[in-house]
Amino acid sequence: MGVFSTSLRTHTCGELRAKNEGERVTLTGWVHSHRDHGGVIFIDLRDRFGITQIVFEPAHNQELHKEAEKIRREWVIQVEGVVRKRTPGMENPKIPTGEIEILADKLTILNKSKTPPFEIEDREKLTEETRFRYRYLDLRRPSMFKKLYFRHKAAQVVRNFLSENGFVEVETPMLVKSTPEGARDFIVPSRLHPGKFYALPQSPQLYKQILMVAGIDRYFQLARCLRDEDLRADRQPEHTQIDFEMSYVEEKDIHNLVENLMKKLFKELLGIDLETPFPRLTYKDAMLYYGSDKPDLRFDLKIVDVTDIVKDSEFSVFKSVVEKGGVVRCIAPKGEFSRKDLDDYIAFAQKNGAKGMAWMRYTEKGLESNIVKYFPEEIQQKLIERVKPEVGSVLMFIADKEKLTAEVIGKLRLKVAEDKGYIPDDPNLFKFVWIVDFPLFEWDEEKRKWEPAHHMFTMPKKEFIGKLKDDPGSVICSQFDLVLNGVELGSGSIRINDPKIQEEVMEVVGFPKEVAYERFGFLLKAFEYGAPPHGGMGLGFDRLVALMQGENDIREVIAFPKTSSGVSLIDDSPSEVTTEQLEELHIKIVKPK
Amino acid sequence: MGVFSTSLRTHTCGELRAKNEGERVTLTGWVHSHRDHGGVIFIDLRDRFGITQIVFEPAHNQELHKEAEKIRREWVIQVEGVVRKRTPGMENPKIPTGEIEILADKLTILNKSKTPPFEIEDREKLTEETRFRYRYLDLRRPSMFKKLYFRHKAAQVVRNFLSENGFVEVETPMLVKSTPEGARDFIVPSRLHPGKFYALPQSPQLYKQILMVAGIDRYFQLARCLRDEDLRADRQPEHTQIDFEMSYVEEKDIHNLVENLMKKLFKELLGIDLETPFPRLTYKDAMLYYGSDKPDLRFDLKIVDVTDIVKDSEFSVFKSVVEKGGVVRCIAPKGEFSRKDLDDYIAFAQKNGAKGMAWMRYTEKGLESNIVKYFPEEIQQKLIERVKPEVGSVLMFIADKEKLTAEVIGKLRLKVAEDKGYIPDDPNLFKFVWIVDFPLFEWDEEKRKWEPAHHMFTMPKKEFIGKLKDDPGSVICSQFDLVLNGVELGSGSIRINDPKIQEEVMEVVGFPKEVAYERFGFLLKAFEYGAPPHGGMGLGFDRLVALMQGENDIREVIAFPKTSSGVSLIDDSPSEVTTEQLEELHIKIVKPK
Repeated sequence: MGVFSTSLRTHTCGELRAKNEGERVTLTGWVHSHRDHGGVIFIDLRDRFGITQIVFEPAHNQELHKEAEKIRREWVIQVEGVVRKRTPGMENPKIPTGEIEILADKLTILNKSKTPPFEIEDREKLTEETRFRYRYLDLRRPSMFKKLYFRHKAAQVVRNFLSENGFVEVETPMLVKSTPEGARDFIVPSRLHPGKFYALPQSPQLYKQILMVAGIDRYFQLARCLRDEDLRADRQPEHTQIDFEMSYVEEKDIHNLVENLMKKLFKELLGIDLETPFPRLTYKDAMLYYGSDKPDLRFDLKIVDVTDIVKDSEFSVFKSVVEKGGVVRCIAPKGEFSRKDLDDYIAFAQKNGAKGMAWMRYTEKGLESNIVKYFPEEIQQKLIERVKPEVGSVLMFIADKEKLTAEVIGKLRLKVAEDKGYIPDDPNLFKFVWIVDFPLFEWDEEKRKWEPAHHMFTMPKKEFIGKLKDDPGSVICSQFDLVLNGVELGSGSIRINDPKIQEEVMEVVGFPKEVAYERFGFLLKAFEYGAPPHGGMGLGFDRLVALMQGENDIREVIAFPKTSSGVSLIDDSPSEVTTEQLEELHIKIVKPK
Repeated sequence: MGVFSTSLRTHTCGELRAKNEGERVTLTGWVHSHRDHGGVIFIDLRDRFGITQIVFEPAHNQELHKEAEKIRREWVIQVEGVVRKRTPGMENPKIPTGEIEILADKLTILNKSKTPPFEIEDREKLTEETRFRYRYLDLRRPSMFKKLYFRHKAAQVVRNFLSENGFVEVETPMLVKSTPEGARDFIVPSRLHPGKFYALPQSPQLYKQILMVAGIDRYFQLARCLRDEDLRADRQPEHTQIDFEMSYVEEKDIHNLVENLMKKLFKELLGIDLETPFPRLTYKDAMLYYGSDKPDLRFDLKIVDVTDIVKDSEFSVFKSVVEKGGVVRCIAPKGEFSRKDLDDYIAFAQKNGAKGMAWMRYTEKGLESNIVKYFPEEIQQKLIERVKPEVGSVLMFIADKEKLTAEVIGKLRLKVAEDKGYIPDDPNLFKFVWIVDFPLFEWDEEKRKWEPAHHMFTMPKKEFIGKLKDDPGSVICSQFDLVLNGVELGSGSIRINDPKIQEEVMEVVGFPKEVAYERFGFLLKAFEYGAPPHGGMGLGFDRLVALMQGENDIREVIAFPKTSSGVSLIDDSPSEVTTEQLEELHIKIVKPK
């Protein structure tokens, strides 16, 4: 008997073949379709494993045939009968069970079903509302099961890989201390401690660092993380990350481990051999060449800085930007760009914050456009040498402050690539890149203060430790991001394991020692008792699994997702609770004005 | 290079042997001890893998020896040196690295440590307060690491076993609808939906049933469950359960699966061959013979009902109990019981609610005690035939209403066994038993209504479906519990998959249809679209892992447990949050009067 045989079935609907001819079997499943051909009833019986054709012949069993007439779509039935080969010519080569059918001689209706609101077929186009509300029917569709099953397999590969590499799975608490930094905490009122609250973990960050102090050496968890963020299309209030931490490592040890993990995952699940090591780009180069810290390397179209060349032109727009310390950068995509296309890109650049976009066509005759006249021949020559445009391409320029220019031209690069089909239509094309050498701090113009660029527990690179106080903006740290096809999969770093450095960093971002101790004291205190050097990562598991399957929306790989306003349509949560519940928790609702 | 070699170390502190003699190695770890023998410094360097002896010889390197003098306990160091065999006679056969030592010629202090509040030794006796507050030091102790590592291995065995058996790991939401039944929900205020709340899942029960309707066929999860219960010594607000559900099964399929899972776990982790199938006891027999639905079968001492015999005695206490419909039950433990012992048991019985405990000694001369005179010879003979006491045992009787009698004599049975050492002192003795045929409902004397004995989703046995309305007390259901050494590991059942039966059950326990739909509508609605027969279990993972290691307290296998008042001493949660946080969540604290 196979693994799936139970008291109610001998086989699944996906396993019988011609070699089983003559066997007496019992199958269970949903009635996928129900057809009457010349008095003979054919039922396609479906479960997660496949579809098997069941035949009710009046000549074989008159009474049973009558019973079978009553059956409707999505009823749950149990059928006993004998496997036989289909009549020659009636085989269905599209399904693995297509050579056989079951001649039924016993039928039990296990459950009835209302007529479902849609057919259980992948081809059905459904609204999000319908899919989420009837998730139990949506998930019956083979493509949806396939995605969840893929996720399941990925989880086992990840855990087994990490276990084989000496990592210990440790469950960190779900009820933790609220230490607001980064996103908002979800909080949980305590009944036993009036006026106090637990928080749900945004990530196990502090706990996994404590585990390193505790000598676990290597920790992992497929960790549930909850963040009360303003939701966007592809955000969920809860997500899962491959969370790990290692002691006595440097950045390259973590890179190496993650590369091997990805190799294993892509080989086992997709049969793809990834090339390692993955390329590395500094944050600075990523911003310069791709205008993004999560560059999509499936296509080239690098950004070129031409500030030093165009500053000597007579084009006042560029000249004045350069005079104010700004930059001028350019991409030179090839393709047919109509005047309207270019106007659209100008509008796109403006929508994203630039003042405009200048352009020049490069033809066999040289550069052409109504601004070319401001560029002396020599400057034009230098531009061509620097940008190396192909004949037939258009040079598109953005000129502004460095940060804005980088961002706008980065977006323009993606937009042009999308419009012109630069991204190869190959579901097996996976371009990983490590982004390294991030700055430790970011200047917050509004708050007029330094903020951690990533988080406060990242170790500055050794040579910058002396500069924390005097020149925070120059400090490069050991943070690194893993990017796949232009999507950030996760961040990692070597952590600060020295309470002195930790305090200095907290001071720069405006946590005086007392406040730091009140919020993170438990970590700082642990650090006083011999914290080993350590580092780790959190990799977005939902996103990884979605990308591997060619999906952009993580909700395709989450069984019960929430809508973009944080509502679960399957159970209508959040919902009202009773007054007794609130009283026990010592809280009261304050209706917004 | 081994799996654990990194940029900072070539080997762990547990792996070098005599065969490595002459190799140049770099080790990292904590300074476990620091001794000066005749000018030579010996350091025991420790990590999770073991301890390796490091030697600093002044003759070998004067400067380094000076450096080494400064080192203190629990400092984190990196040492480079050459493996050499220890001087004959100086080997330490107690540790696997005891044949070798490292002659150091490079030392890096990676981090210092304050003097820890206790030594990192298993023998240290510490208070709970100290252990939880300094959990990062507590977990450095080898016995604690061993327990967490055991848990880690158990988790991988469970997941791999279930995967091999066709189960699909699906993550169910952490933010769900509050459906108070059973324990209290922890709730989470919604910022985006003022006045509404999510709940944290007490278990994935409803979601896993929906997954069966969704055709997943076999689901599992090591599920985080959160219950806001009044805490007792061995309760945690959060626990983990091996949660699974299967379609198209009967009870025996689930039993079979779980038996195979336990076989695998005990074999792989403890090298123990469990005998399967596990014995089965009906709830009724468990209560009759052991006075408990979680009997400890590591010893016998069965309870014997003697109601029909003693009703004909002249002992008025027994006679009047029997006349009022009560029962008289008896155990006959062997051993030395002084008069004081027996008085103590009488007090014990009274403390547990019985009016008293009658007793008779059985000697070679027959039954003896000051109540024997009320029992005619013939009755005494019948008693002896029924109870079959050994010479030298004492018959202890409890007489009261059936439920109370069963409970008190059950506790007495355990108490006597404990006092007299009936439970074999064998850490490898694991006695599993299935308790089956539970009643579906329990009469709540206080509320004057029927309550679900376990939960509302349990299928009544077929032959009782007709009795739901007229005789709820007689209804036996398909619930079953798995019990190990007197501890309930978990409950399972075949679930109701018919909305009609589900509604009837809810009506019996006082959920009229409207209320039922408001609370559980999402499940009842799913059931309208073809729910297959299904069943499953939730097995307490923390408890199982603790018992397998001979621990009774689950906090021994939880990295960051909470105290019995729900406080986490590692991070001092729950804690106060800011007014801004509360305002954003549209709630206010109501201080208790």
